[in-house]
Amino acid sequence: MKQTQLFQKTTKEVKQTDISRNAELLTKAGYVNQLMAGAYTYLPMGLSVLNKIEKIIKEEMNAIGAQEILMPALQPKEVWEKTGRYDTIDVLFKLKGAGERDFVLGATHEEVITPLAQTIINSYKDLPTAAYQIQTKFRNEARAKSGLLRGREFRMKDLYSFHTTQEDLDEYYEKVSEAYKRVYERCGLGHITKKTYASGGAFSKYSHEYQTITEYGEDIIYIIPGTDTAINKEIINDKEALKDIIPNYKDGMEKEFEQVKAIEVGNIFKLGTKFSQACELKYTDKDGSTKYPIMGCYGIGSSRLMGAIAECISDDKGLIWPKEIAPYQAHLISLVFDEEGMKICEEYYNKLKSNGIEVLFDDRTGIQAGEKLKDSDLIGIPNRFVISKKTIEQNKIEWTERLTGKTELIDFDKAISILKE
Amino acid sequence: MKQTQLFQKTTKEVKQTDISRNAELLTKAGYVNQLMAGAYTYLPMGLSVLNKIEKIIKEEMNAIGAQEILMPALQPKEVWEKTGRYDTIDVLFKLKGAGERDFVLGATHEEVITPLAQTIINSYKDLPTAAYQIQTKFRNEARAKSGLLRGREFRMKDLYSFHTTQEDLDEYYEKVSEAYKRVYERCGLGHITKKTYASGGAFSKYSHEYQTITEYGEDIIYIIPGTDTAINKEIINDKEALKDIIPNYKDGMEKEFEQVKAIEVGNIFKLGTKFSQACELKYTDKDGSTKYPIMGCYGIGSSRLMGAIAECISDDKGLIWPKEIAPYQAHLISLVFDEEGMKICEEYYNKLKSNGIEVLFDDRTGIQAGEKLKDSDLIGIPNRFVISKKTIEQNKIEWTERLTGKTELIDFDKAISILKE
Repeated sequence: MKQTQLFQKTTKEVKQTDISRNAELLTKAGYVNQLMAGAYTYLPMGLSVLNKIEKIIKEEMNAIGAQEILMPALQPKEVWEKTGRYDTIDVLFKLKGAGERDFVLGATHEEVITPLAQTIINSYKDLPTAAYQIQTKFRNEARAKSGLLRGREFRMKDLYSFHTTQEDLDEYYEKVSEAYKRVYERCGLGHITKKTYASGGAFSKYSHEYQTITEYGEDIIYIIPGTDTAINKEIINDKEALKDIIPNYKDGMEKEFEQVKAIEVGNIFKLGTKFSQACELKYTDKDGSTKYPIMGCYGIGSSRLMGAIAECISDDKGLIWPKEIAPYQAHLISLVFDEEGMKICEEYYNKLKSNGIEVLFDDRTGIQAGEKLKDSDLIGIPNRFVISKKTIEQNKIEWTERLTGKTELIDFDKAISILKE
Repeated sequence: MKQTQLFQKTTKEVKQTDISRNAELLTKAGYVNQLMAGAYTYLPMGLSVLNKIEKIIKEEMNAIGAQEILMPALQPKEVWEKTGRYDTIDVLFKLKGAGERDFVLGATHEEVITPLAQTIINSYKDLPTAAYQIQTKFRNEARAKSGLLRGREFRMKDLYSFHTTQEDLDEYYEKVSEAYKRVYERCGLGHITKKTYASGGAFSKYSHEYQTITEYGEDIIYIIPGTDTAINKEIINDKEALKDIIPNYKDGMEKEFEQVKAIEVGNIFKLGTKFSQACELKYTDKDGSTKYPIMGCYGIGSSRLMGAIAECISDDKGLIWPKEIAPYQAHLISLVFDEEGMKICEEYYNKLKSNGIEVLFDDRTGIQAGEKLKDSDLIGIPNRFVISKKTIEQNKIEWTERLTGKTELIDFDKAISILKE
């Protein structure tokens, strides 16, 4: 894509409500545009990143046998009254439609999938099963000042699983946990994301959050020494829980745990039969008896994850997209503006494209070299290739890796091989 | 995918509010499930069809240089007041959020994209440009009894283009028109979809609807003899319009036009500067003067299109998916239930998969042959392959083409080559 034709531009203007690091970076680089606090338009490269994150999530969900569906955002009040959550979830958007009918905008989908599952699940032979969606969700947030991290409207993957026994749920819960680990690794957050014990519900002692460590985080987690896991602040003062979670727990040892700020980028939860009972979802077991399936639910906010990546994998110059979610693999930058020079740049651009490489071509004229390079750092494509008078004279191209800042004059063929790695 | 594991089942139960042909067929085949009138869950194969339709639309939009973005569904009241449409669009969903703030759920997005475009468009050099999204939209329908054809919540592609001159808009409008033609052709509706003259607005005499002919249609169109175009009922009695549209128009000739029922599956509209003026979207022209871009807007409801395909390309046995949007290319059906037979079926299933073929395997046991074949017709996958005692004895497989009903005993290798065609 040529930058002069892109429906997206870098900008120095950021709205006063965009005070979070992720919103500031993504807005300046032109990936998103704020319509109002908590609601963003994804411009072409922003949507590309979001799509790539969601593709990773889909692949990992499909790999554990979950099937993708799509449920409505607009829901009748009645399904929420059945579970009693119409009045208890304070961020539910409620609205009236024609004929004074009451609706809800879905913030989560247990109330939809549980009755729906009755059309699939009749017998123990239909279990276990699991379905997920990646969908736009809504929360009536009073304050929405964290950019993509806390939206009034946001994108989310929500997975629901159904089982005959607690053991089967426990086993699947571990599978999901492993899949989540792979999602964060592929999105470049693996090394700073901790599986974190959080409080459970009536049906299980604990749930888990996935917390990504960053100085910009809103949560505090406590890292269990020598492990890859942490404990959240809900249960750090619960001695019984600590004894349960930590082998050889010694009284007061939690005071020595490293405390870090973090962003929650996912959670997994054992629901037990809470929703199957409320929605009367039943199956017939081997012995002919009627039972409630045991459920689990598992969320990842894909737009929130994009915000977390922007916050955590960036420097004072701008964004640094991990390869698998970068909108383009190569940023080709022309610093020659005469006809002859532009012709050479066009040739490089076409060669990259014909090699199947996703390339953004900064073909803008009338802009200083310094500003082009600054924009390129801000946009954060993994590999930058600069064409200048100097590189043309030497029949080379200047390669800079965004992550390391390492710069080299290389042959064009080497550029291709770097990009095909 | 094995049918016993699919998060989707055929059913004989259809809700009383699902009275439309598309909803009845899609529900019985298990593709969709009604949450309430006008709001459906897409089960795995339903989502697959929807995704394939949207993929076609994306490809055709990208081919005419439009760039994909994603705008919020939740919008502040203020942007709708600017254009005066807060009070004039009667199907707008209005809601209140925290702090008594007024929001709207987007039924269309001129109010969002026009101000947004100011971040992209400053100079005549930035024009023409075009952006689209495929997104979930909302309409506060009093009656929503047409299945996927008229939803309270639905999926839609909306494209917006921006130009410096009327000629440039006219040229792009024709390009979009050609792209739409290709979309309907690829979705199997080309032969029964007519570009139909409809009334325009303040800035152009006519707009166009794309109308698919079906006896189940809610609209009436009048086909201009010897052409591929039609006139809608808004303007069929407008003599001036008829003179303008039809070369050698003869008074009263429209009374002889064939009248047919049809479903609207798209529309294209020249907006002129209505929205750029209302939203103060301006650019600097070559001569330094400030002007308003001339706009066009172009819609295709992708979920509505899926409903139209279900209504129009089906028979009394069920759905008949065109190849490019079918959820699977092959429906492998086992009519042998002993261990030996199932082993052979599994082998065929694995061979099809390893040949890269999308295959649904009816591995259900304890179900009559007749019911399996009935379900297969209902589901409407293009090619059915039956394995029975008889076919195993002859080392063959029974192929039935869903569209023609043609049945043949063939070698397995031939099955592969049919599917790879």
